[in-house]
Amino acid sequence: MTTATNVLLTDLYQLTMLQTYYAECMQEIAVFDLFVRRLPQARNFLIAAGLDQALDYLENLSFAPDELDWLAGCGIFDKQFIKSLAEFRFSGTVHALPEGTIFFADEPILRITAPLPQAQLVESRLINLIHYQTLIASKAVRCVLAAPDKLLVDFGMRRAHGSEAALLAARAAYLAGFGGTATVLAGMQFGIPLFGTMAHSLIQAHDSEEDAFKNFAVAQPRDAVILLDTYDTEIAARKLIKLAPNLQARGIVIKGVRIDSGDLAELARRVRRILDKGGLSQTAIFGSGDLDEYRLQELFTDGAPIDGFGIGTRLDVSTDSPILELVYKLQEYAGKPRRKSSVGKETWPGRKQIYRQTADDGTLTADWLSLEDHPMTGHPLLQEVMSNGKRISTPEPLEAIRARVRAQIAALPIPLRDYRSLSKYPVYIAPELRELVAKLDCALH
Amino acid sequence: MTTATNVLLTDLYQLTMLQTYYAECMQEIAVFDLFVRRLPQARNFLIAAGLDQALDYLENLSFAPDELDWLAGCGIFDKQFIKSLAEFRFSGTVHALPEGTIFFADEPILRITAPLPQAQLVESRLINLIHYQTLIASKAVRCVLAAPDKLLVDFGMRRAHGSEAALLAARAAYLAGFGGTATVLAGMQFGIPLFGTMAHSLIQAHDSEEDAFKNFAVAQPRDAVILLDTYDTEIAARKLIKLAPNLQARGIVIKGVRIDSGDLAELARRVRRILDKGGLSQTAIFGSGDLDEYRLQELFTDGAPIDGFGIGTRLDVSTDSPILELVYKLQEYAGKPRRKSSVGKETWPGRKQIYRQTADDGTLTADWLSLEDHPMTGHPLLQEVMSNGKRISTPEPLEAIRARVRAQIAALPIPLRDYRSLSKYPVYIAPELRELVAKLDCALH
Repeated sequence: MTTATNVLLTDLYQLTMLQTYYAECMQEIAVFDLFVRRLPQARNFLIAAGLDQALDYLENLSFAPDELDWLAGCGIFDKQFIKSLAEFRFSGTVHALPEGTIFFADEPILRITAPLPQAQLVESRLINLIHYQTLIASKAVRCVLAAPDKLLVDFGMRRAHGSEAALLAARAAYLAGFGGTATVLAGMQFGIPLFGTMAHSLIQAHDSEEDAFKNFAVAQPRDAVILLDTYDTEIAARKLIKLAPNLQARGIVIKGVRIDSGDLAELARRVRRILDKGGLSQTAIFGSGDLDEYRLQELFTDGAPIDGFGIGTRLDVSTDSPILELVYKLQEYAGKPRRKSSVGKETWPGRKQIYRQTADDGTLTADWLSLEDHPMTGHPLLQEVMSNGKRISTPEPLEAIRARVRAQIAALPIPLRDYRSLSKYPVYIAPELRELVAKLDCALH
Repeated sequence: MTTATNVLLTDLYQLTMLQTYYAECMQEIAVFDLFVRRLPQARNFLIAAGLDQALDYLENLSFAPDELDWLAGCGIFDKQFIKSLAEFRFSGTVHALPEGTIFFADEPILRITAPLPQAQLVESRLINLIHYQTLIASKAVRCVLAAPDKLLVDFGMRRAHGSEAALLAARAAYLAGFGGTATVLAGMQFGIPLFGTMAHSLIQAHDSEEDAFKNFAVAQPRDAVILLDTYDTEIAARKLIKLAPNLQARGIVIKGVRIDSGDLAELARRVRRILDKGGLSQTAIFGSGDLDEYRLQELFTDGAPIDGFGIGTRLDVSTDSPILELVYKLQEYAGKPRRKSSVGKETWPGRKQIYRQTADDGTLTADWLSLEDHPMTGHPLLQEVMSNGKRISTPEPLEAIRARVRAQIAALPIPLRDYRSLSKYPVYIAPELRELVAKLDCALH
């Protein structure tokens, strides 16, 4: 239905502004930052994700003949301008936080430096691509923090908002520490480990629950996860242990069972006892059904003997906080810093860098937002990732990004890791940046 | 990145269940219903949307050679089963509510009647496609009810969850009564009217706000909407009226202004006065910035002279209620009704129909959920739309669906139209259906 590189996946005003820039020959270098204005209420930090898809988009951006024809027929654009779009390519520079980097409000995730029309056109889709994966990685890591040594699997495809969200949620969750996904296409496209159980319909389609269990196990002799709650969970567990000796004699292993409704903690305890007594102590218990970090926490407090979890809708939609205030703002044009001063939406101008300071043991202590040409102590976080419209290096393997997330979480002050309470990390504004703002505001008034 | 017909955009368990069905020759006819278990807290009704994309998906479903190769290399599936997938097509029957139909909890939106493996495989993507557009149409219609005679435009592309959501939100909002969208691709693919204004970056890139206004208006002599709040909204409005005589002398019309921050109602009043005094009484005022039905309502109560609104993130993500409990459940297999009885997730079995009863003036009075072979008085809502895997008729024009939404809203009892308070519409269960449930539950125990 659409592709990641579709140049018309943008807002109309980008094209009408491009027409103005074309008419006025405004082709000088613009610098835009992508950043989050405020963290959502229930997030102490965010995790950058989606850069790989954003760079793909920039590298492949061009107008196809049918798109130009359609634009020409709109009645909004003049012929010369449409003609100029045939040559349109992105030739700019991109600085970005590596995927998996922890960041906070006001910190640029990505900086575009390019001729104004190029930097302008890409706004809508860049926000769209980085927003969603960052949202989901930042939600997923909270689930990982709530269930650190458990297998977590993305089950959210069906209620993710559309096909691309379904696919990219699997990637973002995996980056953040999930063990895998149920979405087959994400396995094929990204090499993410796939997990699956069975649905109630398979049980219902059989005249007896026993036959359903047996047939599914025979067809999946190593990997079967049996769903217990179609009719009555405990009765189903007892049926399973009666079948087990016969299956085991045929070399079939029951890898796990799944419980998807009712009081998960209590049912898991009862099912664990039934399985252990029945010789299935190696069979894992998998839980699912409206789970998120808050429910995972309750289940642990309740001592639920559950080994793995399928996290679905509440992950792929980030239901407790389904948006980030991610914006893309002009910070410099034609060598001059620029600043928006709309009430409540003011921006920090100029080419900036984030300097991350750490204690001797590596724990993060503070970030400083400064101008690039006024370096400070600390590790500079923004790296050049694209030059002249081409990637500087090959895409990072997902495993490297996963390792970065783990390392960054380990270096995060403990109160910030607590997903149950709010804690604010210090991000300071360098004096040079404050002076620049004062100078620009003064010039305006 | 992905296409709407991608057969691997599904959950792994669909394929492992298909392998079981293949091994056991379970190919008889299955009947599945797609329905919403409970309405979200803040929704009195929902609007069905997404059928056109769902039928496209079903008509084009097949496994490509590279997909089969990939599956064969997974280590999960046996060769004979993979070979059988090469012939896989959807050959079933679909009954559905026409897009734009109002519906309630427990009512089937769509019914699939097909050999079990076909009906099973499509679950994940069917839910994914119908869920999102239904969610957005149901949110959008609330905005239309809050601002009945205003121009509402979808501005949400950038923070929609991925590319497909961005595109389909524009379609769903338009069906529900929005005037158009800013998303260019939605204009090209669906013929939806496009609207756009300008961004703050255009103003900031100019050394003076006046030059930005003038240049943008010259490049768009009939359609320019000027953004006022980059620095100071009232000062900007005064700058605009100073420029106006010169622009008008050149035949350039300032179609509108936009205010995107601050106290929208108060600023709109002040700007309206400035424009009226300055000879721009024909220039419309457009509002944007974190709007939804609740904010629209506040603006009206406050008497804001705003003519049109850009509704963005809160529409495309339906932030107050970003998911529906949409599920797809087996109701019959091999001629026998089937029922799931998991705690809190029980289903109504069999082939059902919804009978909608109305008063003499056309107002809806009640719906009855009954079995198809036990018709009741009232208008049957589910219609056959696909037979033998082919659409029965060509896709409905969007304008016809918009007209259906308007008519259905007009027939809705007034308390249900009130988006500020909850009101429950009566959906009754026919005695025959209750008897069937009692019979099935009895047979189980």
